[in-house]
Amino acid sequence: MKIIKTGLAVTVALATLLGFDSCKPKNAASAVSGDAAAKAYVAPGKYDEFYNFVSGGFSGQLAVYGLPSGRLFRTIPIYSQDPESGWGYSEETKPMLNTSHGYIPWDDSHHAELSQTNGEIDGRWIFVNGNNTPRVARVNLSTFRTDEILEVPNSAGNHSSPFITSNTEYVVAGTRFSIPMDNANGDVPINTYKQNFKGTVSFISVDKTTGNMKIAFQILLPGIDFDLAHAGKGPSEGWFFFSCYNSEQANTLLEVNASQKDKDFILAVNWKKAEEYLAQGKAQKVTTKYAHNIYSEKTHSATSTIETEVNMLDAKSLEGMCYFIPCPKSPHGCDVDPTGEYIVGSGKLAALIPVFSFQKLQTAINNKDFEGNYGGIPVVKYQSALYGEVPKPGLGPLHTEFDGKGNAYTSFFVSSEIVKWNVKDLKVLDRAPTYYSIGHLCVPGGDSKKPNAKYVIAYNKITKDRYLPTGPELTQSAQLFDISGDKMQLILDFPTVGEPHYAQACPADLIKKNSVKFFKIEDNANTYVSKGEGETKVVRTGKRVDVYMTVIRSHITPDNIEGIKVDDEVYFHVTNLEQDWDIPHGFAIKGNNNGELLVMPGETQSVKWLPAKTGIYPMYCTDFCSALHQEMQGYVRVSAAGSNVPLLFSTGKNLPPADSTAK
Amino acid sequence: MKIIKTGLAVTVALATLLGFDSCKPKNAASAVSGDAAAKAYVAPGKYDEFYNFVSGGFSGQLAVYGLPSGRLFRTIPIYSQDPESGWGYSEETKPMLNTSHGYIPWDDSHHAELSQTNGEIDGRWIFVNGNNTPRVARVNLSTFRTDEILEVPNSAGNHSSPFITSNTEYVVAGTRFSIPMDNANGDVPINTYKQNFKGTVSFISVDKTTGNMKIAFQILLPGIDFDLAHAGKGPSEGWFFFSCYNSEQANTLLEVNASQKDKDFILAVNWKKAEEYLAQGKAQKVTTKYAHNIYSEKTHSATSTIETEVNMLDAKSLEGMCYFIPCPKSPHGCDVDPTGEYIVGSGKLAALIPVFSFQKLQTAINNKDFEGNYGGIPVVKYQSALYGEVPKPGLGPLHTEFDGKGNAYTSFFVSSEIVKWNVKDLKVLDRAPTYYSIGHLCVPGGDSKKPNAKYVIAYNKITKDRYLPTGPELTQSAQLFDISGDKMQLILDFPTVGEPHYAQACPADLIKKNSVKFFKIEDNANTYVSKGEGETKVVRTGKRVDVYMTVIRSHITPDNIEGIKVDDEVYFHVTNLEQDWDIPHGFAIKGNNNGELLVMPGETQSVKWLPAKTGIYPMYCTDFCSALHQEMQGYVRVSAAGSNVPLLFSTGKNLPPADSTAK
Repeated sequence: MKIIKTGLAVTVALATLLGFDSCKPKNAASAVSGDAAAKAYVAPGKYDEFYNFVSGGFSGQLAVYGLPSGRLFRTIPIYSQDPESGWGYSEETKPMLNTSHGYIPWDDSHHAELSQTNGEIDGRWIFVNGNNTPRVARVNLSTFRTDEILEVPNSAGNHSSPFITSNTEYVVAGTRFSIPMDNANGDVPINTYKQNFKGTVSFISVDKTTGNMKIAFQILLPGIDFDLAHAGKGPSEGWFFFSCYNSEQANTLLEVNASQKDKDFILAVNWKKAEEYLAQGKAQKVTTKYAHNIYSEKTHSATSTIETEVNMLDAKSLEGMCYFIPCPKSPHGCDVDPTGEYIVGSGKLAALIPVFSFQKLQTAINNKDFEGNYGGIPVVKYQSALYGEVPKPGLGPLHTEFDGKGNAYTSFFVSSEIVKWNVKDLKVLDRAPTYYSIGHLCVPGGDSKKPNAKYVIAYNKITKDRYLPTGPELTQSAQLFDISGDKMQLILDFPTVGEPHYAQACPADLIKKNSVKFFKIEDNANTYVSKGEGETKVVRTGKRVDVYMTVIRSHITPDNIEGIKVDDEVYFHVTNLEQDWDIPHGFAIKGNNNGELLVMPGETQSVKWLPAKTGIYPMYCTDFCSALHQEMQGYVRVSAAGSNVPLLFSTGKNLPPADSTAK
Repeated sequence: MKIIKTGLAVTVALATLLGFDSCKPKNAASAVSGDAAAKAYVAPGKYDEFYNFVSGGFSGQLAVYGLPSGRLFRTIPIYSQDPESGWGYSEETKPMLNTSHGYIPWDDSHHAELSQTNGEIDGRWIFVNGNNTPRVARVNLSTFRTDEILEVPNSAGNHSSPFITSNTEYVVAGTRFSIPMDNANGDVPINTYKQNFKGTVSFISVDKTTGNMKIAFQILLPGIDFDLAHAGKGPSEGWFFFSCYNSEQANTLLEVNASQKDKDFILAVNWKKAEEYLAQGKAQKVTTKYAHNIYSEKTHSATSTIETEVNMLDAKSLEGMCYFIPCPKSPHGCDVDPTGEYIVGSGKLAALIPVFSFQKLQTAINNKDFEGNYGGIPVVKYQSALYGEVPKPGLGPLHTEFDGKGNAYTSFFVSSEIVKWNVKDLKVLDRAPTYYSIGHLCVPGGDSKKPNAKYVIAYNKITKDRYLPTGPELTQSAQLFDISGDKMQLILDFPTVGEPHYAQACPADLIKKNSVKFFKIEDNANTYVSKGEGETKVVRTGKRVDVYMTVIRSHITPDNIEGIKVDDEVYFHVTNLEQDWDIPHGFAIKGNNNGELLVMPGETQSVKWLPAKTGIYPMYCTDFCSALHQEMQGYVRVSAAGSNVPLLFSTGKNLPPADSTAK
């Protein structure tokens, strides 16, 4: 199959961009082109209008862009080590990457979902899934830091995640790769897939005040691949919809073997019903192991706890909780329109878009209008749930977002385009080519009740020939379209870090008003904080040495340390005493087999160092902080393991006594 | 000291940007504004005009942007682990991060320097320094990959690096933090600094054909802080200039103690003379240890070798090789103009810019016009070497680049501005505010013989209020100015990853024509390559299991593997069989305490996995590669350590025999 479209590049006549040569009429091509430049441009000193939160894919992180400029403001470390900030290297952050498999330095973050209140984006948190070793993360949008990571047991490939309900009651997580359950004997032949492999979808409750997550229940399902999901809203409130593929239950060469059936499914889950069953004690307590990691900005530290049990509800035995809806063909996107009445499927090998009616689905369920069951779960007749099909819209629909004005925007991977269509009459209204192979797309608030339909952003899988080449590895890319008019207008190509899968966007005002500028030093409850230079010290406990250190423009306290010995385990606990915005300090010491620290004002972070050789080790501030930043340095003397050099530390005076020879 | 300028934001009247309301005259304010938008805009499908290579600072990497758009095309991993690409996690790349201190996952990359031929940028390589654990890296600009990392012994804080000579004969590296030499007893009191701490500058030769680096010689110098450097050219060819501070030789609270003297120095090194001394056997062979790491694109693998000796030339005893020139005040930038006659110093606490004349310096040296010596090295009289001073140009000059038309552009950290001045008459011609606290700046080719003076880019240390807030941690930032006219025109603010220190830029044509699109599979000489699916296999050697694996749209071969046991050491050797541009595949397996692999077409990369529990472990392609990417998955069965489950592997058929129970 030829999947890469090599269509004509969109050429915008820059030479005549602004009509300075002559006064061109408003409808001239050059005016349209000039319009695009102006629409994408954010002048120096001006703010962008929207935040765009884009999943990092195989980077494991979350990227924050401004729209319409496409400028990258920040990469928030979540699942992967970040040498730049010390995330996953510092003692305070290491527990965030703990799992039931131990410490893992990487994951694959596919989807991001902003928290909602009453179906509207509330700007509090953004959730991000980890696909490889199933996890869900919650990022705090006042600090732009990962506050919590919860592992998901009984799952592999946490792909249909972290989609949420209208009041952020739940974040969901569904198995992409079915596996034997954690409490089963997992040491089984792979070709016993149909007997031994199961799928689950997890409903993770979110505390209204703290945001803290907890696995409320899991639903046991047949061993198929759950792909994407979206919650019901309005009339469909209380339901959740998950696309699934590989209903063939193939365990090898899925490219061929999982593409046999004409239709796979959308799973409809009545989660209010599930809550009832849970309350009635119908869940089985299932033993397993999963990590629950929480970062506190009181202590600027994380803790990791291993949980040992989940509530499992069996879909096939608990009536009225789960239904399958047939959906052509190898479904991917599963999207609910702002009214909550329409559920849009997207088969990645399909040449049509099926639109299901929640009302018709309910009628079909009430009438038991089933074509049979799959794994003991009723399968509603396709036609009974179908509102209608968008005929021949393109090839390979992947994902649909909405503009709140009755229109839908669907990405087509195979035919490389965005297609705009009307949800009511299913007529195609417009189409725009993408360069190339679009995956997901995003309208600000486009999966909420109230989209802010100024833009649609395409997240593309192929970029060759769109940017200056950078060897075999190329950036991935987004394209920004203005959708304020009837027709989509391409205004900007912008590169993305990692691989952008799903993204979210919202008006800047929702978030920027809450942004924390620095941490108050008096509130710092880190065990190793020094709230002033007078509190700095170096403490030896056996082979462990704790250096309580402060940094402030432009010196380190203490900046001369002696009495450290080979084979010591040294911890530098660095408190940034600044109380102003944008004055971080960094910390590093020569030869350390570890990352650096990047310490925000008012914060304490700690890095471990295992000195292996005698000598003098310079340390310094790694973040240019003042005109005398280059002078912000110090020295640590390391003596032999058996040395009697006394433990001494100071700043600004020479260490007494000046012993002249090494021991 | 108040160092953050809170000047007025440059407001560009976007509303009237393009004069669509009415036809405005060319000289109207709105036309100027519209001009800025148009100048920064690169339309979708069009290429940027320049590559901009920006050091990552505390990210340890190198960022590649396009100009004038300011778009980030690529972050090239150098000194820090990169979970996204597997750099530092894969078996092939781990040796690149080896040092005499063992494996180090991070460094601080301050400066980048493009290779030159005849004083002009040749587009072959870019060199980047590692500051914390002294190293120099060479990045290949045909692959945009780090080909080589060489550790620098007898050094700490490799800051004045990696500046080069006009034909890339040498890359230099100077000590920022002086220390006891590696072969001395380093276990000495810190307050014996003046007796025991020394500085060095290293001259690293670069092979004309391969680019391979070798430490030709080091020069032993007094224990002060070497900061920045630039080579002579034209008449000053054969000389190198290094700025240095802390001639007070303070070892604590340098903020105060290293700012006592009114002048520190620029060190002038006659490296042709040094070559003569080396040829005459005047160098001492000094034992030490340093790592030399080379990546080969034949094997797609790195090797690390520990070297044990360097040639040391003693500056104080070898006459005519080194001279100090006094320079006010705490010098930072040390820049040579395109003619090679003028050497511009920049004292970060100074209120003037001293410009030295190479010709006057030579005369002074010939006349022994010295004011004395420092550490046994002659100190030329300030006035004897001085061409003149730029009076009151601003506060805190840091760094100067040139436009090749006789003008210089100097960054002023304290007064937050760029000042343009004429090198001949030393008159200030223009000044432009920067937001905020500019460090280095860059003109394409601005430190070569032939600048391409279309732009100057400011790299700023403070960004607060320039972009939408992202909590306490903010992006750092660049600002693009058009300098094609008499006055500098600010046209764009763009964020940068890590902290931008020095940067380089060059016309795109120099590099893009050589860019490699994929690796030829027939040339792949990796030990573990599979050049087709027929060559895939799984081989057990004791507890070690080697999986020879291929990936191609859209399956993994083999995709079912059994017979792996707990406590095995499993290596997945993944060969990407694609032979087209922009079709990487990724590889990950659930629960692995390691990064992923991102494998370019034609390449083999290997990841280690230590399975700790029995069960079924899904693996999959992590880089969306086709419409059936989601189907590109497989399973590995892990049995107990003592199990007799046979080693089996296959794709597309079920594994024989289907043993139904675990052992």
